[in-house]
Amino acid sequence: MFSEISNTGELKKMNIEQLQKLASSIRSFLIEKVSKTGGHLSSNLGVVELTIALHKVFDLDQNDDIIWDVGHQSYTHKILTGRANKFDMLRKYDGISGFPKTSEDKRDTFNTGHSSTSISAASGIAKAKELKGISGKTIAVIGDGAMTGGMAFEALNYSGHTTKNLIIILNDNDMSISKNVGGISKALKRLRNANRYLKFKQDVKLALDNIPVVGTPTKKGLTKFKSDLKKIVINGDSVFESMGFTYMGPVDGHNFEELFTILEHSKTVEEPVFIHVHTKKGKGYLPAENQPELFHGVGCFEPSTGRIICNNDRITWSECFGNTMCKLAEKNKDLVAITAAMPFSTGLVEFSQKYPQRFFDVGIAEQHAVTFSAGFTIAGIVPVFAVYSTFLQRAYDQILHDVSLQNLHMIFAIDRSGPVGADGETHQGVYDISYLSPMPNMTIFSPALAEDFEAILNISVNDLNGPVAIRYPRGSILHRSDFSNVSFPKLEYRNCFKAKVLETYNTVDVLIVSVGVMLKNAIETKKLLNDMGFSVSLVDAFCIKPIDISTIRRESNKAKIVVTIENNVIIGGFGEILQSQLDRSIVKFAYKDEPIPQGSVKELEEKYGLSPQSIADKIKKLLR
Amino acid sequence: MFSEISNTGELKKMNIEQLQKLASSIRSFLIEKVSKTGGHLSSNLGVVELTIALHKVFDLDQNDDIIWDVGHQSYTHKILTGRANKFDMLRKYDGISGFPKTSEDKRDTFNTGHSSTSISAASGIAKAKELKGISGKTIAVIGDGAMTGGMAFEALNYSGHTTKNLIIILNDNDMSISKNVGGISKALKRLRNANRYLKFKQDVKLALDNIPVVGTPTKKGLTKFKSDLKKIVINGDSVFESMGFTYMGPVDGHNFEELFTILEHSKTVEEPVFIHVHTKKGKGYLPAENQPELFHGVGCFEPSTGRIICNNDRITWSECFGNTMCKLAEKNKDLVAITAAMPFSTGLVEFSQKYPQRFFDVGIAEQHAVTFSAGFTIAGIVPVFAVYSTFLQRAYDQILHDVSLQNLHMIFAIDRSGPVGADGETHQGVYDISYLSPMPNMTIFSPALAEDFEAILNISVNDLNGPVAIRYPRGSILHRSDFSNVSFPKLEYRNCFKAKVLETYNTVDVLIVSVGVMLKNAIETKKLLNDMGFSVSLVDAFCIKPIDISTIRRESNKAKIVVTIENNVIIGGFGEILQSQLDRSIVKFAYKDEPIPQGSVKELEEKYGLSPQSIADKIKKLLR
Repeated sequence: MFSEISNTGELKKMNIEQLQKLASSIRSFLIEKVSKTGGHLSSNLGVVELTIALHKVFDLDQNDDIIWDVGHQSYTHKILTGRANKFDMLRKYDGISGFPKTSEDKRDTFNTGHSSTSISAASGIAKAKELKGISGKTIAVIGDGAMTGGMAFEALNYSGHTTKNLIIILNDNDMSISKNVGGISKALKRLRNANRYLKFKQDVKLALDNIPVVGTPTKKGLTKFKSDLKKIVINGDSVFESMGFTYMGPVDGHNFEELFTILEHSKTVEEPVFIHVHTKKGKGYLPAENQPELFHGVGCFEPSTGRIICNNDRITWSECFGNTMCKLAEKNKDLVAITAAMPFSTGLVEFSQKYPQRFFDVGIAEQHAVTFSAGFTIAGIVPVFAVYSTFLQRAYDQILHDVSLQNLHMIFAIDRSGPVGADGETHQGVYDISYLSPMPNMTIFSPALAEDFEAILNISVNDLNGPVAIRYPRGSILHRSDFSNVSFPKLEYRNCFKAKVLETYNTVDVLIVSVGVMLKNAIETKKLLNDMGFSVSLVDAFCIKPIDISTIRRESNKAKIVVTIENNVIIGGFGEILQSQLDRSIVKFAYKDEPIPQGSVKELEEKYGLSPQSIADKIKKLLR
Repeated sequence: MFSEISNTGELKKMNIEQLQKLASSIRSFLIEKVSKTGGHLSSNLGVVELTIALHKVFDLDQNDDIIWDVGHQSYTHKILTGRANKFDMLRKYDGISGFPKTSEDKRDTFNTGHSSTSISAASGIAKAKELKGISGKTIAVIGDGAMTGGMAFEALNYSGHTTKNLIIILNDNDMSISKNVGGISKALKRLRNANRYLKFKQDVKLALDNIPVVGTPTKKGLTKFKSDLKKIVINGDSVFESMGFTYMGPVDGHNFEELFTILEHSKTVEEPVFIHVHTKKGKGYLPAENQPELFHGVGCFEPSTGRIICNNDRITWSECFGNTMCKLAEKNKDLVAITAAMPFSTGLVEFSQKYPQRFFDVGIAEQHAVTFSAGFTIAGIVPVFAVYSTFLQRAYDQILHDVSLQNLHMIFAIDRSGPVGADGETHQGVYDISYLSPMPNMTIFSPALAEDFEAILNISVNDLNGPVAIRYPRGSILHRSDFSNVSFPKLEYRNCFKAKVLETYNTVDVLIVSVGVMLKNAIETKKLLNDMGFSVSLVDAFCIKPIDISTIRRESNKAKIVVTIENNVIIGGFGEILQSQLDRSIVKFAYKDEPIPQGSVKELEEKYGLSPQSIADKIKKLLR
């Protein structure tokens, strides 16, 4: 339906009334499509006018570039660049991404996904164009939530005084994924409330010029005072101006006239510009306006009412985590929980309400989150940092330098470990075993079932020392009762470092060692192999570091073939480390060394040969 | 000599004249000791008075804590806490560390080494004390250079509005390791030049109160204007106040009266405090005052003149890198160099002078450095980011998320890869193979010799695609001529992904595969084994990813035992990955899975069984 305005040439001819109609039909389109596929709704509804205005004022087919921070607000940009007809496959296997992808369209200049990268990328691009003698603006569109990430500050600090033709657009909607945090947030609020800041500055200048130099201690004194004051108020008043940017705004991000005025003005300025745009998350769809967090990353819903359609009423890993944390906090007064802007999706809302003094949301600031947690341990507090596997990557050095080398007792509750589905390659949690295992003193657990997860969280908080990482995936959690044929040992402190031998024979064709929730695939693989006439022993590795090498060696000595199944990449993964320590040949099933695309876990397991059928078929070949 | 003032109790009784004498003798002591052991001189000379003042005003034996950012300014603190007699062993194997170490003294509250961590740690400690009902201040001492690190901003942004009893002391000496960068630096300069900022604010308040409300557009207008102005100038004027801190300063960091006044005042404030202290790096030692960069991390020197005593006139890896970059830049106009505050130590000074438009020092901001570099590639520029292995850890997610997943063509010139010696466990570059290998599209080279290093840098810049990491160690570079008995193949584009077979036999006792500069140990091990009567084939792996598995397999098939020697940790290292891909038993020589302490490379190789003699002995045992 949007094919006729899919290139910027036609858009440029439209008048404001036509653009308002366009915005309105894009909103309807987004609500309808996302209600079926799921996706980031609130953020996209908030930037419809801003995106249209950027496409109208700038020329992305020539030398202007937009970098979308995080990228979860790029749907309108995708529609305007001819991808509307692909929205039925949004975020699906082989479909278009929910984030910018240079492989989809050249006007997606730079891939994003994680927060706070856009200013760095944009300033590099702007600088390179400068060196190459290419004209055109490079524009970073960044939300106020992403501004709390230290990387954005590093980039602002560097770029303001060095990079021409750089435009930073702050999409200020007074929240990141959840409520915003910290000094920057408060400073922005002050600016918003300043009621047309630019105008105020003009008033100040006028008033200072008009103040009579009488009635004050000395004339000289007041003249000096006025000049000092002007310097501070007019040149260095906002955080952004003191960093070297020409600050413009705030403007109403849903008002085309205001947007065109400020964007056209920014085109004429050679120095770096910082434009403050005020938008409403979820704009134009009442259910999303009222509950922007719920509609931030949403599944299917009923468009007319906003009612969320749940296909699954099973409890998730995140919910199990949150419930267990509440129980543990009741008994252990020294337990605290830390999140980096994800209280909802990590399952900590109830904890935050029950224990507000022991709950810390530091904003999008994973580096700070880790070392802040490390600080707690010095005074005997036990911090649990709940974080997605992919975002914990942003604190690699803090985990290693501040926690692991010092052997401090904190828990990393690593949610969304393994493939994450629709968010795709930037968000896949398939690197954590590889990046955590080489860190000294680190203990890593990968539970497969709810009962073990609850037990190991309890043991990690109350009985262990040093850093402990517990990795668990996205989605529903399984219980022992889901595997009625398997007999599980009870997890206690005395056996928490032990691999769990679930089935064993004195001589056996295959030993399968599974990691975490890959136990399900292992059990199904075993059944397939049994049906083919092969005998199979089964071990749930459970403790990924230190590996329980003596148990696995004992089982391995009875088997013709040893197989590992894990939801991590192959390089640096569990299979490789086990092979090194066991010093025998291992058939390793893991994710391939390439970017892992979007798709359901089932689709990805098919693609990478990790489904029970493909594993069983491969083992069968090896055994014959 | 300082035993009598080694506890804070005695220090507290001293008057200012006595303290000045103490400062003077500490300076002499530092100059004398560091001239023999080497160490961070400039930064330590700059904080002698500040450290004494902190020990006098606060009570580290009770509940006050100091976190030293980076920690390379903690020598006076070590002297005042009874460690003066250990300075002959400063930064040596089994000696005291050049950084705070909780294992040395409980008044070293938190270990540091990398930059910008102190505010996060201090705010965690302060918050934990609050929860535990423990009184006392938690103090972060942080340099202006470290303030450019995004992590410091994340911590400031979070802590200012949330954390009581937190004191941040900005040790502002107008430079980090080299000249400081960016907006924060300029803002600080403005504050310094504001000539007693606090006083100015009082003047403003006074003047505003005295401005007569006449002669302006409307009385109401001016009243409103004055109130708005007061709000901005008095409450929200500095970046730090807008983040929620009570700003105090700047004070002269070498003046005890000023220091005592402001520190005593800060003790009485319950809210978070930001104290701006102005110091001079190298203070009191003219050679260091004049060349603070040279004396930042210095080797042995002559105390009376400051003349650096070089034991080694061989060219270093860093120098070879810098020279090669200059040559390559002459021919390739699209080549640019990026550093994160290390132009001197990475060897880029000449490049920065010859090609100022193509040289970018982004300050201590590794995250920004990587994604800024990634941006360059979008417009066809080839960025080379020169960085220490240990500091590149701080950009793990940027390498993975922004560069490797997008397969962008940039070069990581990874200096100080492998053990670094005196800086010890926080700085050991022994994790890079483990953290880079699992990243898709990444190519990793580990050259052993100058000729190969120059060639592969050229090939990486001009012939290859995607991300390329070249890892090389601290210290002198070796040439082919240093190994007259070995015949080296010429490195060219066509063979750059090939392992280098330096010696081969149809049947052989041992195949040694070495990584990078461990080739030297491999050659010496080979000689020892030959002398014992064993035959040895020798392969320089050279390309660490992708591993040239076909060459190594061919050689491995001829050998009874395969051995790898690398300067990385064992977990996720080259040996493990090779074993996984080769699928045969490998004897792996690598650093153990524990924090690797300070000490010379030779001492560490002895400790971890990586010396030629220990390797040869172990192989001999296995062969018999």
